[in-house]
Amino acid sequence: MDIQKFMRRAIELASENVTKGLGGPFGAVIVRNGEIIGESGNRVTQLNDPTAHAEVSAIRLACERIGSFSLDNCVLFTSCEPCPMCLGAIYRARIPTVYYANDRHDAHRIGFSDQFIYEELEKPMEQRSIRMLQLLPDEARISFDLWEKSTQKIPY
Amino acid sequence: MDIQKFMRRAIELASENVTKGLGGPFGAVIVRNGEIIGESGNRVTQLNDPTAHAEVSAIRLACERIGSFSLDNCVLFTSCEPCPMCLGAIYRARIPTVYYANDRHDAHRIGFSDQFIYEELEKPMEQRSIRMLQLLPDEARISFDLWEKSTQKIPY
Repeated sequence: MDIQKFMRRAIELASENVTKGLGGPFGAVIVRNGEIIGESGNRVTQLNDPTAHAEVSAIRLACERIGSFSLDNCVLFTSCEPCPMCLGAIYRARIPTVYYANDRHDAHRIGFSDQFIYEELEKPMEQRSIRMLQLLPDEARISFDLWEKSTQKIPY
Repeated sequence: MDIQKFMRRAIELASENVTKGLGGPFGAVIVRNGEIIGESGNRVTQLNDPTAHAEVSAIRLACERIGSFSLDNCVLFTSCEPCPMCLGAIYRARIPTVYYANDRHDAHRIGFSDQFIYEELEKPMEQRSIRMLQLLPDEARISFDLWEKSTQKIPY
Protein backbone atom coordinates (compact mmCIF):
# COMPACT_ATOMS: atom_id res chain seq x y z
CA MET A 1 0.00 0.00 0.00
CA ASP A 2 1.29 3.46 -0.89
CA ILE A 3 0.93 4.87 2.61
CA GLN A 4 2.50 8.21 1.71
CA LYS A 5 -0.12 8.82 -0.99
CA PHE A 6 -2.98 8.34 1.47
CA MET A 7 -1.34 10.49 4.12
CA ARG A 8 -0.79 13.25 1.59
CA ARG A 9 -4.51 13.12 0.81
CA ALA A 10 -5.32 13.48 4.54
CA ILE A 11 -2.95 16.47 4.76
CA GLU A 12 -4.49 17.95 1.60
CA LEU A 13 -7.95 17.70 3.20
CA ALA A 14 -6.58 19.44 6.31
CA SER A 15 -5.07 22.30 4.32
CA GLU A 16 -8.13 22.70 2.09
CA ASN A 17 -10.30 22.82 5.19
CA VAL A 18 -8.49 26.01 6.19
CA THR A 19 -8.13 27.63 2.79
CA LYS A 20 -11.80 26.99 1.94
CA GLY A 21 -12.96 28.16 5.39
CA LEU A 22 -14.58 24.82 6.21
CA GLY A 23 -13.05 24.33 9.64
CA GLY A 24 -9.96 23.33 11.60
CA PRO A 25 -6.73 22.05 9.99
CA PHE A 26 -7.52 18.36 10.20
CA GLY A 27 -8.20 15.68 7.60
CA ALA A 28 -8.71 11.91 7.69
CA VAL A 29 -8.90 9.13 5.11
CA ILE A 30 -10.04 5.52 5.55
CA VAL A 31 -8.61 2.93 3.20
CA ARG A 32 -9.73 -0.65 2.50
CA ASN A 33 -7.92 -2.86 0.00
CA GLY A 34 -5.99 0.12 -1.32
CA GLU A 35 -9.13 2.18 -1.95
CA ILE A 36 -10.40 5.24 -0.08
CA ILE A 37 -13.86 4.40 1.29
CA GLY A 38 -14.35 7.53 3.42
CA GLU A 39 -12.61 10.86 3.89
CA SER A 40 -13.39 14.14 5.59
CA GLY A 41 -12.03 17.34 6.99
CA ASN A 42 -13.09 18.66 10.38
CA ARG A 43 -16.73 19.83 10.20
CA VAL A 44 -17.35 21.12 13.73
CA THR A 45 -18.07 24.76 12.95
CA GLN A 46 -19.62 24.14 9.55
CA LEU A 47 -22.18 21.64 10.88
CA ASN A 48 -22.44 22.91 14.46
CA ASP A 49 -21.47 19.40 15.51
CA PRO A 50 -18.74 19.14 18.19
CA THR A 51 -18.33 15.43 17.35
CA ALA A 52 -17.60 16.10 13.66
CA HIS A 53 -13.83 15.79 13.91
CA ALA A 54 -12.17 14.55 10.72
CA GLU A 55 -11.67 11.00 12.04
CA VAL A 56 -15.24 10.61 13.37
CA SER A 57 -16.67 12.05 10.16
CA ALA A 58 -14.55 9.77 7.97
CA ILE A 59 -15.55 6.73 10.06
CA ARG A 60 -19.24 7.59 9.65
CA LEU A 61 -18.89 8.01 5.90
CA ALA A 62 -16.89 4.80 5.46
CA CYS A 63 -19.37 2.77 7.53
CA GLU A 64 -22.27 4.21 5.57
CA ARG A 65 -20.51 3.39 2.32
CA ILE A 66 -19.85 -0.26 3.16
CA GLY A 67 -23.01 -0.81 5.25
CA SER A 68 -21.22 -2.02 8.36
CA PHE A 69 -20.40 -0.68 11.82
CA SER A 70 -17.02 -2.43 11.71
CA LEU A 71 -13.93 -1.24 9.84
CA ASP A 72 -11.72 -4.07 11.10
CA ASN A 73 -10.01 -4.51 7.73
CA CYS A 74 -9.27 -0.82 7.21
CA VAL A 75 -6.43 1.63 7.78
CA LEU A 76 -6.95 5.20 9.00
CA PHE A 77 -4.72 8.04 7.85
CA THR A 78 -5.15 11.20 9.87
CA SER A 79 -3.24 14.46 9.52
CA CYS A 80 -3.00 14.74 13.33
CA GLU A 81 -2.84 12.34 16.26
CA PRO A 82 -6.45 11.58 17.29
CA CYS A 83 -7.99 13.22 20.36
CA PRO A 84 -9.53 10.92 23.01
CA MET A 85 -12.99 11.14 21.42
CA CYS A 86 -11.61 10.11 18.03
CA LEU A 87 -9.35 7.44 19.49
CA GLY A 88 -12.38 6.03 21.31
CA ALA A 89 -14.26 6.06 18.00
CA ILE A 90 -11.36 4.23 16.31
CA TYR A 91 -11.59 1.46 18.93
CA ARG A 92 -15.38 1.35 18.50
CA ALA A 93 -14.93 1.03 14.73
CA ARG A 94 -12.30 -1.68 15.31
CA ILE A 95 -9.73 -0.05 13.03
CA PRO A 96 -6.45 -1.90 13.71
CA THR A 97 -3.93 0.51 12.16
CA VAL A 98 -3.62 4.29 12.34
CA TYR A 99 -1.09 6.53 10.63
CA TYR A 100 -0.89 10.10 11.94
CA ALA A 101 1.27 13.08 10.91
CA ASN A 102 1.15 16.02 13.36
CA ASP A 103 1.11 14.90 17.00
CA ARG A 104 -0.70 16.15 20.11
CA HIS A 105 2.15 18.51 20.97
CA ASP A 106 2.00 20.14 17.54
CA ALA A 107 -1.77 20.52 18.02
CA HIS A 108 -1.32 22.05 21.45
CA ARG A 109 1.03 24.66 19.97
CA ILE A 110 -1.73 26.00 17.70
CA GLY A 111 -4.40 26.00 20.41
CA PHE A 112 -6.01 22.54 20.28
CA SER A 113 -5.79 21.13 23.78
CA ASP A 114 -6.19 17.37 23.38
CA GLN A 115 -3.68 16.82 26.16
CA PHE A 116 -6.07 18.33 28.71
CA ILE A 117 -8.80 15.84 27.79
CA TYR A 118 -6.36 12.90 27.84
CA GLU A 119 -5.42 13.91 31.39
CA GLU A 120 -9.04 14.38 32.43
CA LEU A 121 -10.01 10.87 31.30
CA GLU A 122 -7.21 9.38 33.41
CA LYS A 123 -8.42 11.12 36.56
CA PRO A 124 -10.79 9.60 39.09
CA MET A 125 -14.26 10.90 38.31
CA GLU A 126 -14.44 13.21 41.33
CA GLN A 127 -11.25 15.05 40.28
CA ARG A 128 -12.40 15.92 36.77
CA SER A 129 -13.42 19.41 35.74
CA ILE A 130 -16.80 17.99 34.66
CA ARG A 131 -19.18 17.14 37.50
CA MET A 132 -20.21 13.49 37.22
CA LEU A 133 -22.84 12.16 39.61
CA GLN A 134 -24.55 8.80 39.87
CA LEU A 135 -28.34 8.73 40.00
CA LEU A 136 -30.96 5.95 40.09
CA PRO A 137 -28.65 3.00 39.33
CA ASP A 138 -31.21 0.52 40.69
CA GLU A 139 -33.81 1.69 38.17
CA ALA A 140 -31.32 1.66 35.28
CA ARG A 141 -30.44 -1.96 35.89
CA ILE A 142 -33.81 -2.87 34.37
CA SER A 143 -32.59 -1.82 30.91
CA PHE A 144 -29.54 -4.06 31.24
CA ASP A 145 -31.71 -6.98 32.40
CA LEU A 146 -33.89 -6.49 29.32
CA TRP A 147 -30.77 -6.66 27.11
CA GLU A 148 -29.54 -9.83 28.76
CA LYS A 149 -32.92 -11.53 28.28
CA SER A 150 -33.54 -10.22 24.76
CA THR A 151 -33.65 -12.85 22.02
CA GLN A 152 -33.65 -10.31 19.15
CA LYS A 153 -30.55 -8.31 20.09
CA ILE A 154 -27.74 -7.62 17.61
CA PRO A 155 -24.40 -7.77 19.48
CA TYR A 156 -21.86 -5.10 18.54
CA MET B 1 -34.46 20.87 38.20
CA ASP B 2 -36.23 17.54 38.59
CA ILE B 3 -33.14 15.46 37.93
CA GLN B 4 -34.92 12.17 38.62
CA LYS B 5 -37.50 12.89 35.92
CA PHE B 6 -34.80 13.40 33.28
CA MET B 7 -32.84 10.34 34.35
CA ARG B 8 -36.00 8.25 34.19
CA ARG B 9 -36.46 9.44 30.60
CA ALA B 10 -32.89 8.37 29.76
CA ILE B 11 -33.55 4.96 31.32
CA GLU B 12 -36.85 4.70 29.45
CA LEU B 13 -35.00 5.36 26.17
CA ALA B 14 -32.49 2.63 27.09
CA SER B 15 -35.21 0.08 27.83
CA GLU B 16 -37.25 0.99 24.74
CA ASN B 17 -34.12 0.61 22.64
CA VAL B 18 -34.03 -3.06 23.61
CA THR B 19 -37.74 -3.82 23.55
CA LYS B 20 -38.16 -2.15 20.14
CA GLY B 21 -35.01 -3.83 18.77
CA LEU B 22 -33.32 -0.51 18.00
CA GLY B 23 -29.97 -1.25 19.65
CA GLY B 24 -28.07 -1.53 22.91
CA PRO B 25 -29.54 -0.68 26.34
CA PHE B 26 -28.41 2.92 26.47
CA GLY B 27 -30.26 6.23 26.45
CA ALA B 28 -29.24 9.87 26.88
CA VAL B 29 -31.06 13.16 27.37
CA ILE B 30 -29.70 16.73 27.15
CA VAL B 31 -31.47 19.41 29.16
CA ARG B 32 -31.21 23.19 28.95
CA ASN B 33 -33.23 25.46 31.23
CA GLY B 34 -35.35 22.53 32.36
CA GLU B 35 -36.24 21.49 28.80
CA ILE B 36 -35.06 18.44 26.82
CA ILE B 37 -33.30 19.72 23.68
CA GLY B 38 -31.93 16.38 22.46
CA GLU B 39 -32.40 12.72 23.32
CA SER B 40 -31.48 9.40 21.78
CA GLY B 41 -30.96 5.72 22.34
CA ASN B 42 -27.92 3.90 21.00
CA ARG B 43 -28.13 3.70 17.19
CA VAL B 44 -24.95 1.76 16.31
CA THR B 45 -26.53 -1.29 14.71
CA GLN B 46 -29.57 0.51 13.32
CA LEU B 47 -27.50 3.13 11.47
CA ASN B 48 -24.31 1.11 10.94
CA ASP B 49 -22.51 3.93 12.76
CA PRO B 50 -20.06 2.86 15.49
CA THR B 51 -20.02 6.44 16.80
CA ALA B 52 -23.81 6.57 17.30
CA HIS B 53 -23.76 5.92 21.02
CA ALA B 54 -26.67 7.46 22.92
CA GLU B 55 -24.59 10.36 24.27
CA VAL B 56 -22.96 11.25 20.92
CA SER B 57 -26.32 11.02 19.15
CA ALA B 58 -28.05 13.20 21.77
CA ILE B 59 -25.24 15.77 21.58
CA ARG B 60 -25.56 15.96 17.79
CA LEU B 61 -29.33 16.38 17.97
CA ALA B 62 -29.14 19.03 20.69
CA CYS B 63 -26.49 21.03 18.81
CA GLU B 64 -28.52 20.85 15.62
CA ARG B 65 -31.61 22.01 17.52
CA ILE B 66 -29.96 25.07 19.05
CA GLY B 67 -27.59 25.81 16.15
CA SER B 68 -24.41 25.76 18.21
CA PHE B 69 -21.43 23.45 18.70
CA SER B 70 -21.36 24.34 22.41
CA LEU B 71 -23.68 22.93 25.08
CA ASP B 72 -21.94 24.76 27.92
CA ASN B 73 -25.22 25.60 29.67
CA CYS B 74 -26.66 22.09 29.47
CA VAL B 75 -26.86 18.97 31.63
CA LEU B 76 -26.49 15.45 30.25
CA PHE B 77 -28.43 12.53 31.71
CA THR B 78 -27.19 9.15 30.53
CA SER B 79 -28.44 5.73 31.57
CA CYS B 80 -24.83 4.49 31.77
CA GLU B 81 -21.43 5.98 32.53
CA PRO B 82 -20.01 7.29 29.25
CA CYS B 83 -17.31 5.36 27.38
CA PRO B 84 -14.08 7.24 26.47
CA MET B 85 -15.44 8.24 23.05
CA CYS B 86 -18.57 9.71 24.62
CA LEU B 87 -16.69 11.32 27.48
CA GLY B 88 -14.38 12.92 24.92
CA ALA B 89 -17.46 14.16 23.04
CA ILE B 90 -18.86 15.59 26.30
CA TYR B 91 -15.67 17.61 26.77
CA ARG B 92 -15.79 18.71 23.13
CA ALA B 93 -19.40 19.84 23.60
CA ARG B 94 -18.39 21.61 26.84
CA ILE B 95 -21.16 20.04 28.89
CA PRO B 96 -20.29 20.85 32.53
CA THR B 97 -22.53 18.36 34.37
CA VAL B 98 -23.27 14.69 33.74
CA TYR B 99 -25.63 12.40 35.63
CA TYR B 100 -25.24 8.68 34.95
CA ALA B 101 -27.08 5.61 36.32
CA ASN B 102 -25.39 2.29 35.49
CA ASP B 103 -21.60 2.46 35.76
CA ARG B 104 -18.75 0.94 33.71
CA HIS B 105 -18.67 -2.17 35.91
CA ASP B 106 -22.37 -2.82 35.33
CA ALA B 107 -21.74 -2.39 31.59
CA HIS B 108 -18.81 -4.81 31.69
CA ARG B 109 -21.03 -7.43 33.31
CA ILE B 110 -23.35 -7.48 30.29
CA GLY B 111 -20.53 -7.51 27.74
CA PHE B 112 -19.74 -3.85 27.02
CA SER B 113 -16.02 -3.45 27.63
CA ASP B 114 -15.48 0.29 28.13
CA GLN B 115 -12.83 -0.47 30.72
CA PHE B 116 -10.55 -1.94 28.04
CA ILE B 117 -10.66 1.28 26.01
CA TYR B 118 -10.08 3.45 29.10
CA GLU B 119 -6.95 1.39 29.80
CA GLU B 120 -5.80 1.57 26.18
CA LEU B 121 -6.00 5.38 26.12
CA GLU B 122 -3.79 5.58 29.21
CA LYS B 123 -1.06 3.44 27.63
CA PRO B 124 1.90 4.82 25.71
CA MET B 125 1.08 4.61 22.05
CA GLU B 126 3.48 1.74 21.33
CA GLN B 127 1.82 -0.48 23.96
CA ARG B 128 -1.73 -0.16 22.60
CA SER B 129 -3.49 -2.97 20.75
CA ILE B 130 -3.96 -0.57 17.82
CA ARG B 131 -0.84 0.10 15.74
CA MET B 132 -0.17 3.84 15.63
CA LEU B 133 2.64 5.12 13.44
CA GLN B 134 3.80 8.64 12.61
CA LEU B 135 4.20 9.55 8.95
CA LEU B 136 5.13 12.77 7.10
CA PRO B 137 4.93 15.17 10.07
CA ASP B 138 7.00 17.79 8.20
CA GLU B 139 4.48 17.92 5.38
CA ALA B 140 1.51 18.07 7.76
CA ARG B 141 2.89 21.11 9.51
CA ILE B 142 1.87 23.13 6.46
CA SER B 143 -1.83 22.72 7.34
CA PHE B 144 -1.17 24.01 10.86
CA ASP B 145 0.78 26.98 9.50
CA LEU B 146 -2.17 27.79 7.23
CA TRP B 147 -4.47 27.76 10.27
CA GLU B 148 -2.21 30.05 12.26
CA LYS B 149 -2.04 32.56 9.40
CA SER B 150 -5.73 32.34 8.44
CA THR B 151 -7.77 35.50 8.98
CA GLN B 152 -11.14 33.82 8.32
CA LYS B 153 -10.91 30.99 10.85
CA ILE B 154 -13.68 30.30 13.36
CA PRO B 155 -12.07 29.17 16.66
CA TYR B 156 -13.80 26.30 18.45
